[in-house]
Parts: sequence; C-alpha cells; structure tokens
Amino acid sequence: MNQEHLTLHTDKYQINMMYAHWKNGTHNNVRVFEAFFRKNPFRGGYAVFAGLERILQYLEQLRFDASDIEFLREQEENYDEAFLEELADFTFTGTIYSVKEGTIVFPNVPLIRVEGRIFEIQLIETALLNFMNYQTLIATKAARIKQVAPDDTLLEFGTRRAQEASAALWGARAAVIGGFHATSNMLAGKLFGIPTKGTHAHAFVQDADSELEAFEAYARALPDHVTLLVDTYDTLKSGVPNAIQVGLALKKQGKALKGIRLDSGDLAYLSQEARKMLDAAGLQEVQIVASSDLDEYTIQSLRAQGARIDTWGVGTKLITAEDSPALGGVYKVVAKLEHGEWKPTIKISGNPEKVTTPGRKIPVRIINRHTGRAEADYLMNWDEQLAGVERLKLFDPIHTYLHKFVTDFDVIELQHKVFEQGKRVEKAQKLQEIQQYHATQIPLFWNEYLRNLNPERYPVDLSQQVWDTKMQCIAEHTNRRN
Amino acid sequence: MNQEHLTLHTDKYQINMMYAHWKNGTHNNVRVFEAFFRKNPFRGGYAVFAGLERILQYLEQLRFDASDIEFLREQEENYDEAFLEELADFTFTGTIYSVKEGTIVFPNVPLIRVEGRIFEIQLIETALLNFMNYQTLIATKAARIKQVAPDDTLLEFGTRRAQEASAALWGARAAVIGGFHATSNMLAGKLFGIPTKGTHAHAFVQDADSELEAFEAYARALPDHVTLLVDTYDTLKSGVPNAIQVGLALKKQGKALKGIRLDSGDLAYLSQEARKMLDAAGLQEVQIVASSDLDEYTIQSLRAQGARIDTWGVGTKLITAEDSPALGGVYKVVAKLEHGEWKPTIKISGNPEKVTTPGRKIPVRIINRHTGRAEADYLMNWDEQLAGVERLKLFDPIHTYLHKFVTDFDVIELQHKVFEQGKRVEKAQKLQEIQQYHATQIPLFWNEYLRNLNPERYPVDLSQQVWDTKMQCIAEHTNRRN
Repeated sequence: MNQEHLTLHTDKYQINMMYAHWKNGTHNNVRVFEAFFRKNPFRGGYAVFAGLERILQYLEQLRFDASDIEFLREQEENYDEAFLEELADFTFTGTIYSVKEGTIVFPNVPLIRVEGRIFEIQLIETALLNFMNYQTLIATKAARIKQVAPDDTLLEFGTRRAQEASAALWGARAAVIGGFHATSNMLAGKLFGIPTKGTHAHAFVQDADSELEAFEAYARALPDHVTLLVDTYDTLKSGVPNAIQVGLALKKQGKALKGIRLDSGDLAYLSQEARKMLDAAGLQEVQIVASSDLDEYTIQSLRAQGARIDTWGVGTKLITAEDSPALGGVYKVVAKLEHGEWKPTIKISGNPEKVTTPGRKIPVRIINRHTGRAEADYLMNWDEQLAGVERLKLFDPIHTYLHKFVTDFDVIELQHKVFEQGKRVEKAQKLQEIQQYHATQIPLFWNEYLRNLNPERYPVDLSQQVWDTKMQCIAEHTNRRN
Repeated sequence: MNQEHLTLHTDKYQINMMYAHWKNGTHNNVRVFEAFFRKNPFRGGYAVFAGLERILQYLEQLRFDASDIEFLREQEENYDEAFLEELADFTFTGTIYSVKEGTIVFPNVPLIRVEGRIFEIQLIETALLNFMNYQTLIATKAARIKQVAPDDTLLEFGTRRAQEASAALWGARAAVIGGFHATSNMLAGKLFGIPTKGTHAHAFVQDADSELEAFEAYARALPDHVTLLVDTYDTLKSGVPNAIQVGLALKKQGKALKGIRLDSGDLAYLSQEARKMLDAAGLQEVQIVASSDLDEYTIQSLRAQGARIDTWGVGTKLITAEDSPALGGVYKVVAKLEHGEWKPTIKISGNPEKVTTPGRKIPVRIINRHTGRAEADYLMNWDEQLAGVERLKLFDPIHTYLHKFVTDFDVIELQHKVFEQGKRVEKAQKLQEIQQYHATQIPLFWNEYLRNLNPERYPVDLSQQVWDTKMQCIAEHTNRRN
C-alpha cells in the first residue's frame, strides 16, 4: 500500500538472530511458528481477526534494497559481508496458513501458522504481529459497537486522534470488517474502496455572516449530500430551525436534506427534540447523526434513554481502542522439522499461562448440528483426523475433569493456506465480502460468549494427543533441570 | 518519509468545505487557525510538543495526483470539473508559526498558527492534528518515564504492539525527543538516525539443544554486542549461571559480556540476585536490562524496591500511551483578514471550556530573572509589545481576581516561523539536538508543575487585551441571539 518499503520495520534482535543462525550454520533449519493472543481485549469474550491482507502485501514486497544493506553495514561492525550479500538476495519462501479475516476468534487459538527457514520466519515476526494486533483490535472494537446498534449506520470518524497515519488508514479498514459502513478518511476510501462520509465543521459556520447563510452556501454547493452541523451556536434555538429552513427549500427544488449532525450537549434530549421539530416541519426523512466521544457504552446508554439517532460517528474511542489500546498477540515456535519429521517444541515459563502448546497444530471449530452453534474450538495435531469420529470428547485443558461429549457435529477448519513456498495463493478479498463473512459468523455463537459485558468463556480445547504431547514436553524439561 | 503520498489523508468534510467555499467564491478568504490541546494527557501537568518535522514534510509534498483527482471525481458527482482542475494545481502557500519540537507545553497555548487561504488551511487540519497529537503524546509519555529514571538507559521496544507501522516509526522518534536513547525498530533507526538495540528472543534459546549452547552461538556471532536473555528456563538457576560462563569466556578473549536481560518474574528480586551473582563472578561491568510491561509507575516502584536495573526496555505502555491513548488536540479558526485587518473570531459553546480565545495571538513564556523559573505562559495579541513593560499583571482567565505582578522578567517567544508563503523556512533539526533542547527546558519549571503525580496547574494567562476581546466577542454573540 502507498509504496511503503517496510523490510526494516522489524526489531533489531530479529536481524541479530538471523545473523547468529547464519554464522552458526543453523539458518536453514525449518521451524513452525504460531501467532495467537492470550487475552481478549476490552474485557470481552472474543476478537475479530483482521490484518491478513496487510501481512500478505508486506510479504510479497519483502526485499532488502541497497540502502537497507548499507544501513545494516553501518549499524553493526560484527556483520560479515557475506551475510549482507545473503540479505541482498532475500525473498520470503515460507508457507503460511491463516484464519480468514472477519473470523470470530478466541484466546490461544493459532491464528497464523508460519513454516519455513528460521532465517526468514524470524524476520517477519515484528511486522506480522504489528499488523495483526492493531487491525484485530480495531475490528473487535467495531464489532462491539455494531452489537449495540445493529441496524444503525456506523461511521468511522477518528483520523485526527488516530495513532499516526497508518493506524487511521488500516483502522478504517478494520472498522469496516467489524461492521462499520463508512469512514471520513479519504485515503482509506481510495485505498480500500470504503464509502466516505463527511459534512462540514464549525469553522464553516463561523466563517459566514450567519449560520443560515453558511447552511445555504453548503446546500448550494452539494445539494445532493447535505448534512448540516447544528450545534455551532445553539442547537435547538438556532441550528435545527435553520436546518429546517434549508430542508424545506431543498424540498421545493426536488432535493432533500439528508441529515443534521449533533456534536455536543445532551445527545439523548437534543435528538428527541430535534426529531420532533423535523417531523413537525414535515421532514420525517431527515436523519439525525450524532458524534462526540462515542463508544459501545455511550451508544447503548443513549439508545436506552430513547435517543432518536440514526447514524453514529465514532472517533477516538474506536480508532485508538481507548479502553484497551493494545492486543498482546505473540508469535511462538511450536515445532522443528528434524529428519523429515515435525518435532514439537515448548517454551516453559514460571507463569503457567505463558507455557506454549507444542506441535504443528490445526485449529478447528466444532459445530453442533442440532443447534447450529459452536461447541468449542479444538486444536489437534496436523496428522490427526476427525473424519469418522462419532463421539468427540472435549475437555478443559486446565481443569481436565471438566468435559463433555459431542456426537452430531460438523467440523470447520479455521485456517487455510495463504502462502505456499513464498507464493501468495490467497487472492485479495473485497472488503465488503469480508464484512459479510464476519456477519455470518455471529449466529454461530451463543450470545453468552459474545455479549459485551461479563461474557462466558468460550471453550478452546486440546485434542488428547496435543494435551499428552504438552505434558510430555513439560516433563522432559522438568527432568532436564532437576 | 518512505515515499508516502498523503494528500487524501484528510477527512471528507475538509474537501466538502473546500468545495463549498470554492463554489461560493469564498475560498481565497484569508484566515488564521491555531492548534492546541485543552487537557494534559496522563493526568499530568504538561506535554512535550512533537510532530512538527512530520507536518513540514507533509506540507512540502502536498499535491493531488491524477489518481487522487480521479478518485474525487468518482466519489462525488456534485464536484464541478473546474474544482478538480483547481485541485490539480494545488500547492500549500500559507504561512506557519510553530513551537519548537521538544518544548514543554501546556493546555490552551497555541502550538501551531496557520495563516492562509481557507481553501488550503482547511485541507491540512486532519493530518496536522493526526501527526501533532500522536507524537506529542508519545514524547510526553517518554518524558514521564525519563523523570523516574533520569540516569538510566531507556530503550523503546514497542513495535509489535504499536498501532500500526507509522506509529511504531514516528513513536520511536517521539520517544527519543522525550529522552529515550535507542529503539529496537530498525526502520526508525534508518529514517531518523536513532541508535538501535536488540539481542535475541526466547525462540533462539529454544532452538538450540541447550541454553548454554544458544548463548555460546550468539556470542560467537556478535562478540562485541552480547546481551543475553536469561529467563527462558529459570533465571537464577540456569540463565544467569550460563550467562556468567559466557561472560568469563568472552573476558578471556579480551571481549566483554555487555548485559543480561530479564523479561519476566519479579524484576526487583531477580535483578538484585543476578547482580550479586555477576559481581561474585567478577563481572561488575555487565549491565542488567529489564523489560516486561514497564511504564513510569512500575519503574519507579522497582527503583524504590532497590532493583539493580541499568537499562529499561519499554514497550506497549509507551508506544500506545496506554493509560491515555489520545491527545485531544484541536485546530480552531481565531481570526479573519478583512480589508487588510485581522478580525478576531470566536466559537461559542454550551461547554465553557470549549469557547475559543479569539485573535491572532503570540504565546510567550515569562521567566522570573531571580529564580530562572517560568512564572506563566502569556497569550497576547500579535501587535502587543512587552518590551518596556516593567510590571506585568498576570491574572487567571477564569477566576480573574486571582492575579500577581511580575517585575524583573525575561520573555521567551514560544513560536517561530517555519513556513512562509508556502516555502519551508525551518531546516530539519537533528533528533539529538531536539532531545537536548527538550532537556534544557526542564529546569525552567518548578517541579510542582512537572511531577508525574498530582501536579499543580501551570498558569496560562491572557493579556488584558486578549481577555477584553474575548469578552467582547462573547457579548456580541449573546446579543445577536437574544
């Protein structure tokens, strides 16, 4: 996107590890890494996976140019020239499996599986996590907002408060995946085909001799798309009456006032009063747009108070994910290829939640055929099969005595191949298709798992084989140390 | 930077207002806008201004290319062809005054003043705020962290949790302005000349047959820059002893182990124990680096507990400004040029804090010559003079009975000209110079204003003339409405 050259958008330790592997002759070792997160953002019950398209575009253009090489030469006198020559020829040749963008996902489910030479797959960790973490975070926040206003129009208005330019752009895209309809950011519109929306600011009203003149000037210029900001001086005494006057004039021309926008004050009260005034003037078709520090909590509260708002412009709290501004996605090695076999590998930690689940794994979703709802996500080894399994035991991987059996079930594979030996095999999807796909995911889950406040924990279980392997790996480590 | 083309990185309403002005023949009107923020981030007492260099680079390259024009044509059937032709010839021809990057700044002080055709200065609002808000936020967070560890080494380690790529890059730059020494992000190093730092990850240790072999392999490759991550298996039983072994071997080669890194567990206890073990082995020179969800609060607490940490790697909480992830900087029209005169203009609001201060203003800082400390920031009209004023009255702009007189004072002008009629007149400064300039600002303020917890409010006062103008503008508006 936008001609970015991001090969050095990585941590120095990745380059140092590449160098240490190269120097020690281990750089061609084949490894499997998995990207996943451990905790849902926003104290919620789920996340909406996003960021894959950005990752694929990044991988396709991954080259060290001459200035990158020169920079590395200056940075570190320990780097051999032959290493820098190796980098000059670098391309990504690995294979990647990923969850589809828009999928509802849960902690500890492998979202992206990367296989290839350690030399390559170490380099990409930083950018891959940076892209996945941010877009997944914003798509999730957008989905939470969508949940409280499922039938209203949702506009992403956050650019000026976004954490720099690429957050504004890719954040607008992620918001659409989560269910938003449009963005104010024109470049996001251009790059991703997102509808763009916007009216005018207070400055436009202040610049004219009167509010009415400003409204009339705006309507003259853009007669087919007039939404008027009515709170510059006094919403109910000045803004709405002036907007009504313009609305009636537009009607005489065979046009229509599209909306009025409230940007301050008591949005519940003002929207109800404005609605009455518009209706009384025969302008039932004029929509009411609200903006002003909105998020899922304020929107839900305004709706509960009977606010008459049709369209929500959501800014800062969406684009910065204000109440949970980082998703802690990680990228961990889970298997090594040795003598043609995938050997599981584990990271032990004093903190039990940080112990990884070893093995080259396949995550699937178990759907109960009677209810049509998901029973659990289930992580199995790559060579395990569920075809022919009639009665599947699902047990909690921590409190293993907690278990249930499912019998009549469908299995959805969560990952699919997106890169094969360095070639992209997944075509770019239209953003609207991703949004629609996301929407189809929601009815797969009981609302208990998806609700914004105090959700139930959705089960993410291990197959008996994966669980046994994990215990074995832990035991081996414990023995080695004692 | 990085070949970005950001002209459409703006809100649609800016383009709509440009069009409405153009259509109504008001697009050449000359206006003055000021950018400022109303509330300090992090419940703190100040902010560190940053983002100017990014803004200047953006303005220098501001052109609509053919694909931008084509996009606008498709977006909005109301746009005249002649308007699109006007855009094709667009360049920024305005004049800009700005505070220097690294300056300690306060709420309601105009940071950037933009003068020019409304057609141009409306377009740039969104990007200008986006850049200023983010970098100022991160420079401020970095300065708060610097405050609790003024003599330690501070590393920015946040890329994987940053809100997308450009936040990682410009955030690393802003962290350096606030006092950080280095970043892990290689591209930030390349673009901004920031020193880069990084060692290895747990994956590198896991990949070898033993921790010691991994450490030895790393030391073979990068003998001059060995910092070893010691918490993959067991920090005190395995990591530190293995690092000591490698450190002693390096010593024999005439090299030195630079450091060990702690990334989990009780950093206070582990660092003290590790220090004892290193010292007992004769490795007093080996530094201890810590990382793991750090911010100004955890670092202060660890220091208070006697942690023996020399270098702090700060990630998520710095790069996302986690406890205050948006600075609410705004950009408001304050004056119009009419018949050759600057006429003040105001925005009224039901919320008194949101009423703007009208007029083309100059912000200065009043320094008491006896104490060498700042007494207040003082906003005066552009044609006011303080030369020759011997006794200056400073009064609170809300509670006007609160006042003091200063007699023996110096006046520092806070803004200087950076763009003149579309030409950049401010050369790019070296980042290290900006950092040094920032450091010289700190002793200008009593610690009561700068302390992290419950600071006193620093006075930002209006001249009598500015205050009178504001009251007059409010009165005019009130009269007009009644």
